[in-house]
Amino acid sequence: MQTELSSTLGVEHAVFGFTPFPAVAAAITRAGGFGVLGAVRYAAADDLARDLDWMQEHTDGLPYGLDVVMPAKKVEGVTEADIEAMIPEEHRAFVERTLDKHGVPPLPEGAAPGWRITGWMEQVARSQLDVAFDYPIKLLANALGSPPGDIVQRAHDHGILVAALAGSPRHARHHKEAGIDIVVAQGYEAGGHTGEIATMVLTPEVVRAVDPLPVLAAGGIGTGEQIAAGLALGAQGVWLGSVWLTTEEAELHSPRLTRKLLAAGPGDTVRSRALTGKPARQLRTEWTDAWDDPAGPGPLPMPLQGLLVADALSRIQKYETEPLLGTPVGQIVGQMNNTRSVQAVFDDLTRGFERAIDRINRIAGRV
Amino acid sequence: MQTELSSTLGVEHAVFGFTPFPAVAAAITRAGGFGVLGAVRYAAADDLARDLDWMQEHTDGLPYGLDVVMPAKKVEGVTEADIEAMIPEEHRAFVERTLDKHGVPPLPEGAAPGWRITGWMEQVARSQLDVAFDYPIKLLANALGSPPGDIVQRAHDHGILVAALAGSPRHARHHKEAGIDIVVAQGYEAGGHTGEIATMVLTPEVVRAVDPLPVLAAGGIGTGEQIAAGLALGAQGVWLGSVWLTTEEAELHSPRLTRKLLAAGPGDTVRSRALTGKPARQLRTEWTDAWDDPAGPGPLPMPLQGLLVADALSRIQKYETEPLLGTPVGQIVGQMNNTRSVQAVFDDLTRGFERAIDRINRIAGRV
Repeated sequence: MQTELSSTLGVEHAVFGFTPFPAVAAAITRAGGFGVLGAVRYAAADDLARDLDWMQEHTDGLPYGLDVVMPAKKVEGVTEADIEAMIPEEHRAFVERTLDKHGVPPLPEGAAPGWRITGWMEQVARSQLDVAFDYPIKLLANALGSPPGDIVQRAHDHGILVAALAGSPRHARHHKEAGIDIVVAQGYEAGGHTGEIATMVLTPEVVRAVDPLPVLAAGGIGTGEQIAAGLALGAQGVWLGSVWLTTEEAELHSPRLTRKLLAAGPGDTVRSRALTGKPARQLRTEWTDAWDDPAGPGPLPMPLQGLLVADALSRIQKYETEPLLGTPVGQIVGQMNNTRSVQAVFDDLTRGFERAIDRINRIAGRV
Repeated sequence: MQTELSSTLGVEHAVFGFTPFPAVAAAITRAGGFGVLGAVRYAAADDLARDLDWMQEHTDGLPYGLDVVMPAKKVEGVTEADIEAMIPEEHRAFVERTLDKHGVPPLPEGAAPGWRITGWMEQVARSQLDVAFDYPIKLLANALGSPPGDIVQRAHDHGILVAALAGSPRHARHHKEAGIDIVVAQGYEAGGHTGEIATMVLTPEVVRAVDPLPVLAAGGIGTGEQIAAGLALGAQGVWLGSVWLTTEEAELHSPRLTRKLLAAGPGDTVRSRALTGKPARQLRTEWTDAWDDPAGPGPLPMPLQGLLVADALSRIQKYETEPLLGTPVGQIVGQMNNTRSVQAVFDDLTRGFERAIDRINRIAGRV
């Protein structure tokens, strides 16, 4: 599966795998794809350096990338405490009521506080990048908005391509103007932050909007047939995130969550603002239902919501409170029905792709 | 573009075109596709007979089909007047207020009342079918739910294949149990009634759910590249509705609506209950905004909403009240940028399909 972009990056298959787990990212790269490690969960730059060291040792000199969350808009001098102070008491009480209803215990005395989505803060993302530029990464992806111009310049100075996610042709044009190299067209059916336009329509619209920049199709892709469809729509590669969540290498650390993912159908996700304040597709749970209930206070805007729910999500995850337990995941969750190694998933992807090409050639009368 | 299904039906291309306009349906069939005439707007059986006579004369003996709306659930002895009586006064007042706000005049004295979505009433659909079975139609499609068993039997006795639309694998399995022959997997991005699962995910899920029945991919398909994608997902054909709305043969009778369709982007549709009471994708207008506004009374359930808004929609259409003027249409409306003949659209579809096959074969290393 070779496109101009996969040749440029030196990978065998134009399959980009996004994951928060170094072991998964490295396995994707070793399998002939392009592993992209999500950096948003690294609050400490040292932790990121440790995991990038590990990636270097486990990727056999093959290329991989890093995904950060760096908003183009700066908020000068605003600290996490300033943001915390903006959260209404009503919302804090709603969090506690919802947890109490399901008997979720507090975190043990002295436990680390909940993981905060602090990657949105530019200073955190910049400290991550200071680390990342010391490693031979080949791609820097930005998950929200266009990256700032000086970061694009620094990446280019290091010979690193810059990618950015877009949910509409307008966002994609903005990325092109910001000097980025690759647009990831993230459709409605994708896990995580998404817009309302489905991959089938979004991909060709973005291809036209940013021509001649290469576009990756994201959202709804978890089989070789779906890869063939994404590439038929004009993409130079595909971007897969959800499918790795149930691999053997994924470090979810929650058997109950893995079971929920394996059991879920295609209609068991919801696009909700419950997680970050912006619409993000995730498993539908009693937690998302509570936030989406018109009778409740509703989610706060980003970044308030992420800070508000950080400790609560840690508690739900630690105690695996089944009805509330969720994760960002796309509509392909209905196709994720067993636990396999990353290599086994990759083999299925390439075999399914070849089957789809055979079939469509028969339909086109090319055999 | 040949699949087992297109061979069975005797058409050159596995492209099914749904349209309420006989001139469009006949032109699709003459171009080598399979035209499907929507019957829901025919309140009088005589009108349907007249248009089917016309279809016979203009399809050169090539195959075509008919789409009806026949719910499997019977409501015994309920008349249109009974349904009208269930509509709350608050909702009638809201319709009048919204029309007044935009200065929409009443219909002229003696004008025919607004077109009613009466096709939902089983007696209407059955009288349409009594007419249809006198014509050599090759396919009978049912737009909402599984058709009743006796209708499936009558169709099969006439050598007619029966298709039904499905928005989820569960609906699709229900259709299979009801004895239908073809499932149209209608994705979230489609115009008209849709579920929440996008075509990229829905198509392969439905293919698996009803195997070995043939599946048509619907939603987000308006170019040859999108046809290639739909077929790569395992479909035996594609079902296109929106793309014909701006053809020369379409009888929209509203230059302003045509201009709105040509100008709309992929984000200018909304999945709203404003039209029929069930979620249907359509142009977003101040009319859909009014119904989707939490401050308003909100849409009534099907079939009440359709009856409630029938006259209002006729008035908006007659006077072409720009801010309120809309139509069911899918997210591909962003790709509909000029008025062409059905034949020209078809030529673009087949050329784009061949280009997509060339490109994907290069990516797969098959050239």
